[in-house]
Amino acid sequence: MRFLPHEKEISVKEGTSLLRAAMEAGVHINASCGGEGVCGKCRVLIEAGEVEDGITEKLSQEDIDKGYRLACRSKVKTDLVVRIPVESAIDAAVLNKMATPRKTARIKERNLDDLKEKGLFVPPVEEKYLELPIPTAQDNMADVSRIATCLRNDHNEHRLEFDMSVIRKIPDVLREADFKVTVTIARPVRAEGKNRIINIEAGDKTAHNYAIAVDIGTTTIYGEMIDLITGEVLAQYGDFNAQISYGEDVISRIMYAEKEGGLETLNKKVVGTINKVIEKIIKRSKIDLDEISTITLAGNNTMTQLFLNVNPRYIRRAPYVPAAILYPPVKASDLGLHLSDHVTALVYPQVSSYVGGDIVSGVMGSGMGHDDELTLYMDIGTNAEIVIGNQDWLVCAACSAGPAFEGGGVKMGMRAATGAIEDFSINPVTLEPMNITIGNVRPKGICGSGLITIVATLFEVGIINNSGKFNQDLDTPRIRKTDDVYEYVLAWEDVSGIDRDIVLTEIDIDNLIRAKGAMYSGCMTLLKEVGLDIQSLDRIILAGGFGSFVDLEKCMVIGLLPEIDHEKVTFIGNGSLLGARMSSLTNRIRLDVGDTLSRMTNFEFSETASYMDNYIAALFLPHTDLNLFPKLQSRLAERRKLKN
Amino acid sequence: MRFLPHEKEISVKEGTSLLRAAMEAGVHINASCGGEGVCGKCRVLIEAGEVEDGITEKLSQEDIDKGYRLACRSKVKTDLVVRIPVESAIDAAVLNKMATPRKTARIKERNLDDLKEKGLFVPPVEEKYLELPIPTAQDNMADVSRIATCLRNDHNEHRLEFDMSVIRKIPDVLREADFKVTVTIARPVRAEGKNRIINIEAGDKTAHNYAIAVDIGTTTIYGEMIDLITGEVLAQYGDFNAQISYGEDVISRIMYAEKEGGLETLNKKVVGTINKVIEKIIKRSKIDLDEISTITLAGNNTMTQLFLNVNPRYIRRAPYVPAAILYPPVKASDLGLHLSDHVTALVYPQVSSYVGGDIVSGVMGSGMGHDDELTLYMDIGTNAEIVIGNQDWLVCAACSAGPAFEGGGVKMGMRAATGAIEDFSINPVTLEPMNITIGNVRPKGICGSGLITIVATLFEVGIINNSGKFNQDLDTPRIRKTDDVYEYVLAWEDVSGIDRDIVLTEIDIDNLIRAKGAMYSGCMTLLKEVGLDIQSLDRIILAGGFGSFVDLEKCMVIGLLPEIDHEKVTFIGNGSLLGARMSSLTNRIRLDVGDTLSRMTNFEFSETASYMDNYIAALFLPHTDLNLFPKLQSRLAERRKLKN
Repeated sequence: MRFLPHEKEISVKEGTSLLRAAMEAGVHINASCGGEGVCGKCRVLIEAGEVEDGITEKLSQEDIDKGYRLACRSKVKTDLVVRIPVESAIDAAVLNKMATPRKTARIKERNLDDLKEKGLFVPPVEEKYLELPIPTAQDNMADVSRIATCLRNDHNEHRLEFDMSVIRKIPDVLREADFKVTVTIARPVRAEGKNRIINIEAGDKTAHNYAIAVDIGTTTIYGEMIDLITGEVLAQYGDFNAQISYGEDVISRIMYAEKEGGLETLNKKVVGTINKVIEKIIKRSKIDLDEISTITLAGNNTMTQLFLNVNPRYIRRAPYVPAAILYPPVKASDLGLHLSDHVTALVYPQVSSYVGGDIVSGVMGSGMGHDDELTLYMDIGTNAEIVIGNQDWLVCAACSAGPAFEGGGVKMGMRAATGAIEDFSINPVTLEPMNITIGNVRPKGICGSGLITIVATLFEVGIINNSGKFNQDLDTPRIRKTDDVYEYVLAWEDVSGIDRDIVLTEIDIDNLIRAKGAMYSGCMTLLKEVGLDIQSLDRIILAGGFGSFVDLEKCMVIGLLPEIDHEKVTFIGNGSLLGARMSSLTNRIRLDVGDTLSRMTNFEFSETASYMDNYIAALFLPHTDLNLFPKLQSRLAERRKLKN
Repeated sequence: MRFLPHEKEISVKEGTSLLRAAMEAGVHINASCGGEGVCGKCRVLIEAGEVEDGITEKLSQEDIDKGYRLACRSKVKTDLVVRIPVESAIDAAVLNKMATPRKTARIKERNLDDLKEKGLFVPPVEEKYLELPIPTAQDNMADVSRIATCLRNDHNEHRLEFDMSVIRKIPDVLREADFKVTVTIARPVRAEGKNRIINIEAGDKTAHNYAIAVDIGTTTIYGEMIDLITGEVLAQYGDFNAQISYGEDVISRIMYAEKEGGLETLNKKVVGTINKVIEKIIKRSKIDLDEISTITLAGNNTMTQLFLNVNPRYIRRAPYVPAAILYPPVKASDLGLHLSDHVTALVYPQVSSYVGGDIVSGVMGSGMGHDDELTLYMDIGTNAEIVIGNQDWLVCAACSAGPAFEGGGVKMGMRAATGAIEDFSINPVTLEPMNITIGNVRPKGICGSGLITIVATLFEVGIINNSGKFNQDLDTPRIRKTDDVYEYVLAWEDVSGIDRDIVLTEIDIDNLIRAKGAMYSGCMTLLKEVGLDIQSLDRIILAGGFGSFVDLEKCMVIGLLPEIDHEKVTFIGNGSLLGARMSSLTNRIRLDVGDTLSRMTNFEFSETASYMDNYIAALFLPHTDLNLFPKLQSRLAERRKLKN
């Protein structure tokens, strides 16, 4: 499709909304309602080709006959030529120069076929269907021995160990099922471990076998139901960690846990949320509780210790000592999870008090510890963690970024859920916004990816300066002062999904600058500690649950990322969940994690003097030293020229 | 000491009662009260030397002055010459010829020093005291890693695994104890297993570490408290298995377990009895519950399955299939045992439905599977088991002997407890008895060893014939007919410990004959199956809880044992308990049991036609074919000559 008058071409999938396509092409269309079709501002003229829908009461019959459609409600059907009504004074070249460039991060998809090809699609639990010989006077070996013999001889399964709970079921199940049974085998999670028989069922049940992967976030807990036969994710669900009422960050949770009964309360809360998530994904995937064979969980150190009922008291006290690195597999029901008796829960191991299982999970899930490419892994969140390395060495460190990326400390911040503004552009002349929300509904707030894009855009078009302060001379009602704080109105009350205007304040911007400053200085400090610079990196992996679209160009504009080749950057979304999912699909990861862990060297930024200097220098958009961002520097110069 | 007029000499320990010494020497003294001193019949004259005590109101001052004492109350102090008042007409030579010969089985004592010398005194749980470096900013490894590092570097401990319950305790205990702690390490029970850290305590607690060994008998449950530092047994206790109210033998227990709720009831009963035994031995040994680190249990297949809550339904049905051979270690508290959370319970493995963990335990405890001597192992009890073999091969079989050896099916039978007649002789002229009871109190009943000795003696002196029927021509009030059944009165009501006469009936004798017949034919059948005969055996090991003294000569008289060199026979008492104790002292046994098990070939007598023929031939005293017992044959001939 081609956008006029910009003369921009882009290829999109059939069914993409015109609004999203325009955003991808870097073409601005006024659209403040998030894509729900209520503001009626995103009128476009279809000059060639055909779209589906796009007709609402906001368009007159005359307009419709002329070929006008609402961009937010129109879906691409054929090749198209679409004209955007723009201020006549501006020609296409200028328009394009004034638009902020964009580059959506490549999303690294897990490749199941690749796993299968490499023989790595070996889930940690497998089911085998056995047709056993019926005992006779000449062959009256014990029931367990009969099963073990068949597994050894016919299925090449060795080092077998039967759970007591299974032994209790075996005699009756064998005879009820005429000695035709399905056994569930749990692979060892440590080298030289045993293959444990954890369940027995009558008949052939091998068609159904499921795993649950959970990310225990400080703010949000995500769960996935994974089909271990096909490798597909059947259902996902995320919910706020119910511990939130006891403190927003890990430090306040630890402090609460130190109170009388505090640990028990927080443990119950997190287990309660996980159970809620489990219940939802069971319901959504329409499977039977008993067919779930395993659960893998990843979380930071504090979340892991609270979940396992291990007092996290010493995590927040110098010298910041976690209880353990590796935790043994534990019966899920012993941890309070509403899963069958045969299910074992495995939590990802930790590196240090502040580089936790969520990062180890991300490193394992992304495979960076097994590649020769030198990779920078950044987990963007309240507790920001950075890992640099490859198959030979890994260094890691954590810094506190604050909750801005997860919607915390932002007036109208929210997590990446329906109604969150996740993408944004601005008309550089009228300063009118184009909001795209998750789910294309009226905007309810701003998620992490939206926040980055909004702040970067406001900065590039000159609405805010490099300290994040508003330009008070601009003539638009969207910039105003409320309670002595400057703010930009993203959506007026009449098109917002809540009962008031959706705004972004100077305080919000300041919080984002501090968050990105912490991350950037973390990367720079760690790179310098290992004697490298940005240019040495082969790859950057971004992880974080802050939105489904990450605009790399915008990340570079605010100085969250250094300016490097976009092709080097991939986005993996929730890294913690990815690792939990991947280790449900390939037991190799569980076995390798100890080895990877032993190669991870932890740096404490509190012990590194240069970190604070780097941090202070990074508290600008994009940085004190604009020379570090040459592409942005030249764009800003060009924009100034245009304006003048 | 020397007995007159018999001219018999014997050496005994200082403090032995004269009655016991006489019994050992084969010298009969009338004594029906069991040794309590109430019948006053055991008057003897001390002609030289000195005894302690022995003076009661039953002796006149004149007798005392002459040197008379009651044999049952006199203790050997110096060398002695003791005259027994006997019928003047009989000379010493005849007396001695008429006495029944005796030979107490050698008791095989476990030799702790020997274990230590061979480096085998390695209990399955050990405690290590650690003084750990205190964490600093430069050394802030996780608490668990700190302990593991110290164990690896300073104690050469590897393959470590920490229990979740220990991890929960570690952070606080370390800091309360200023990083000086004792950890408890459980050795792996299977090859290639891990060394599990099961407990952590503040300070140095290595002086106290205990294990419990339990024999889960169908009739009686025995427990022992073992000091793992010294290797000593600190306390023992036995009690009736509370399942007894639901059936006397395993078959009736299995039938009860098949009823609605039956398994749960029987499981509760056996666990309840074990808890009672544990409570008693904790009290008797005066130790702290938390200092107990492990428990090992051995029982037959049915008892094991009932204890582990595994339905034994298929044990009693052809083709007699047990649920499992090896059971995994299970947390003791999960089995309902009143022990600390860190204690793991291990049960001995089984061979087949009727050769159970009690036998495997006995085989392991006796070491017969690791010697080159060809050994016959006989466990004498309700469920009689026989094992033949050496370090190269082992065969085993079970037969049902009935409960006679354990006091069941015997009118006044009882288990080997205080008041049980355990030894016996008779005056061949007057037919008056000499009873020795456990605890030297008035007789309350007859235990297994007493039963064997009484029946053998009655047979040798001609009171009963080779079918176990009474000679009705004898002139003594002790032989009488009650309710149409002949019986011999061992103790009249006035000297008995219960409110009636203690008797042995023809029915009792018949039950014993059937029990010993089953055992003997079992041995013969199994020997023949492997192409051997009695003379090939290097050693016979007798096991069973039927008394502390086993008179080998008497066992051969009744035909329980074949006539072989006494030196080849040892008695180990409760073999099941011995094995449980030995594997608490040396983990090697736990590791070796799988290998031993794989060398044990099970024979089913129900599948062996010759067993029933052998059995029927053995239903006589000592056997249909007296030529098999040449020594007894010649003694009986001599006795007939004397009489005539």
